[in-house]
Amino acid sequence: MNAELISVGTELLLGEILNTNAQFLATELAKLGISVYYQTTVGDNPARLTDAVKIALNRSDMVILTGGLGPTADDLTKETVAEYFGLKLIRDKRSEQRIKDYFSRINANTVPSNFKQADMPEGCIILDNNNGTAPGGIIEKDGKIAVFLPGPPFEMVAMYKEGVYPYLSEKCTEQLYSREIQTFGIGESRLEDMLKPIMENQTDPTIAPYAKESGVMLRLTTKAHTQQEADDRFNPVEEEIKRIAGDIIFGYGEEQLQDAVYKLLKEKNIKIATAESCTGGMMGEFLTSVSGISSYYEMGVVTYSNDMKEKLLGVSHDTLEKYGAVSEQTAKEMAVGVLRASEADIGIGITGIAGPTGGTDEKPVGLVYVGLADSKGTVTFRELRLNGSRERIRRITVKNALNMVRMHIKETF
Amino acid sequence: MNAELISVGTELLLGEILNTNAQFLATELAKLGISVYYQTTVGDNPARLTDAVKIALNRSDMVILTGGLGPTADDLTKETVAEYFGLKLIRDKRSEQRIKDYFSRINANTVPSNFKQADMPEGCIILDNNNGTAPGGIIEKDGKIAVFLPGPPFEMVAMYKEGVYPYLSEKCTEQLYSREIQTFGIGESRLEDMLKPIMENQTDPTIAPYAKESGVMLRLTTKAHTQQEADDRFNPVEEEIKRIAGDIIFGYGEEQLQDAVYKLLKEKNIKIATAESCTGGMMGEFLTSVSGISSYYEMGVVTYSNDMKEKLLGVSHDTLEKYGAVSEQTAKEMAVGVLRASEADIGIGITGIAGPTGGTDEKPVGLVYVGLADSKGTVTFRELRLNGSRERIRRITVKNALNMVRMHIKETF
Repeated sequence: MNAELISVGTELLLGEILNTNAQFLATELAKLGISVYYQTTVGDNPARLTDAVKIALNRSDMVILTGGLGPTADDLTKETVAEYFGLKLIRDKRSEQRIKDYFSRINANTVPSNFKQADMPEGCIILDNNNGTAPGGIIEKDGKIAVFLPGPPFEMVAMYKEGVYPYLSEKCTEQLYSREIQTFGIGESRLEDMLKPIMENQTDPTIAPYAKESGVMLRLTTKAHTQQEADDRFNPVEEEIKRIAGDIIFGYGEEQLQDAVYKLLKEKNIKIATAESCTGGMMGEFLTSVSGISSYYEMGVVTYSNDMKEKLLGVSHDTLEKYGAVSEQTAKEMAVGVLRASEADIGIGITGIAGPTGGTDEKPVGLVYVGLADSKGTVTFRELRLNGSRERIRRITVKNALNMVRMHIKETF
Repeated sequence: MNAELISVGTELLLGEILNTNAQFLATELAKLGISVYYQTTVGDNPARLTDAVKIALNRSDMVILTGGLGPTADDLTKETVAEYFGLKLIRDKRSEQRIKDYFSRINANTVPSNFKQADMPEGCIILDNNNGTAPGGIIEKDGKIAVFLPGPPFEMVAMYKEGVYPYLSEKCTEQLYSREIQTFGIGESRLEDMLKPIMENQTDPTIAPYAKESGVMLRLTTKAHTQQEADDRFNPVEEEIKRIAGDIIFGYGEEQLQDAVYKLLKEKNIKIATAESCTGGMMGEFLTSVSGISSYYEMGVVTYSNDMKEKLLGVSHDTLEKYGAVSEQTAKEMAVGVLRASEADIGIGITGIAGPTGGTDEKPVGLVYVGLADSKGTVTFRELRLNGSRERIRRITVKNALNMVRMHIKETF
């Protein structure tokens, strides 16, 4: 089966919003093995919309439209599609009631135009909207399928998952399953090189590396009838990757390095403390983006000035004089200092030059030192030489620091 | 003039990347007063691409294509467009040389296929690529215009600005100018209400409010021949807005609250220090995202545990016992504590419940206190009751804290 996407909305044509709906649906359909050959964006204009629907259903089996289901006069997606199929719009009592309920829930009054949203093409499958007022629908006629969904992404995504996916997955016995393996610590080309032996003879599942700011994401993909069947193919390949590349896998799917660190802190029941200079609190912010971290993140300090590094962290004046604020020694003393002050189990000290100004020949922008100290007496560090914008340098620094913590806990605690 | 956009790339059809090119071009064309009625995305498939180009140029004056200019065999945008117009591809010596130079600059060797990128439709205007190897081009024939640009956004955007914009702006004497006014402190509906008197009788420039997480953005828009002409219309309206809504404007365009705060710290030459609990360093991270802040951001601490609030900030044990960590009193003592420890001019203390867990009936998720203390003895606070995700609550908290600082500096220093 092949399909087309039609995004309806003048705000898209004006570039006021980014078309995330098209990306979401394209990804979902690809998973189902449904080919999407065209995506079209058109405004709230009946003539041009009709034109787009004709072209689409003329060359494809299915069209999924998003947007234009609102209560106002210029929302005409449903009307246009119904007319294309020669279907009348009929007031759907259930949807009408749901709209009434919705407004009473939010203590608002309805106006007649609200109920325009309950007028549905006769005989269509009605998709409830649990996050708004506009129901969606699926029309099957003359061997063609038209699906219409609301435009607001959170309404559309929920409706797709609750109503459209079950409908489509029945039509597609074999689906595309994928496992996204998040790795950190080895660059894309080197990792690809290391994995060549598997990747070359590996046709099912396929292995595709995607360079990301936080390391490399490896996507394993296979066509299968069930998740179990897919997992049975993924697992041995993942084992092989671990065998070759070592302990670089920190998570799956949407997982971030801070999630991996949180799991380890919790598992070993140890606490961390951070002292940041160039990252200005970003490491703390990443860590505390994980709910529940409070019991394991003892304290963080941001010490920009040397004065504060001495006062707050006890970095020695001589060290700052002799080696400078951006140095291996200072990073280590910051880590030791924050460890001492907090009585945590692991202390991190970050100092560097995030730029765009402040670099010298000997200490260029992007030079960063991350110090690590632990309650067992370990004091170590890493030197990073990064490039890119101030923001990028700060983010990559924090990700490297988080990975250092991840590896250190695994090895030491 | 009207135009269509065609984005070429299988990765777009698969949803692997978001189509930011279409949004950028749509916005730019809207500024020029060029109407975009359709946007199409199609894969690297000559038949379907030809189909799309035919449909587009059949109903519109101009088509702008992005993507499919790469060196590989499946990059066929240029070839397809040339064929549509019945034009031969001719090796462009200058582009050929530029490609040679590019590869020698990055110390890489060329392969013959690289020079496929130098084959251009005869008689087309050639657009240099200063950020990659693929030149773009503009074909004018039979009263139609076709522009083809590389797919990578940073190459495309630069080429548009350097080559396409000058070309198009000559064709459009009157352009759409807009001024984006960033405000914070008044919600959209209330602001709209306050501004009704101007907005209603205001046709040129138009005023459109856009609700954003960081306050409301007011976009003034007018059609004019020059920036000066536009500014002369914008200025009085902005003055009127200030008169009615007060000191809510913190910046223009892309400016953030932290930029406004930085400017004020610098102007008054005063220092700030932060003590964060629920935001876990996010305020520090926002502040330090501004280059040059180091001289004005004295120190930041992240104190999650009560113990650290006492040890590091001298929050009194009684206060924590009596009012709890999330309280007006604690927020104030955190602000005073970090002010004392840092000898800065302004101290901020943030404590709250970011959720999703940890809320109670009396102290629900989203309850946040921001304390502010200054070197002149002021000690004040704000109570926030926010909703949404953990991330949202944290971001909105920091934005409110930044705005508090902004207002306080203006009023007090």
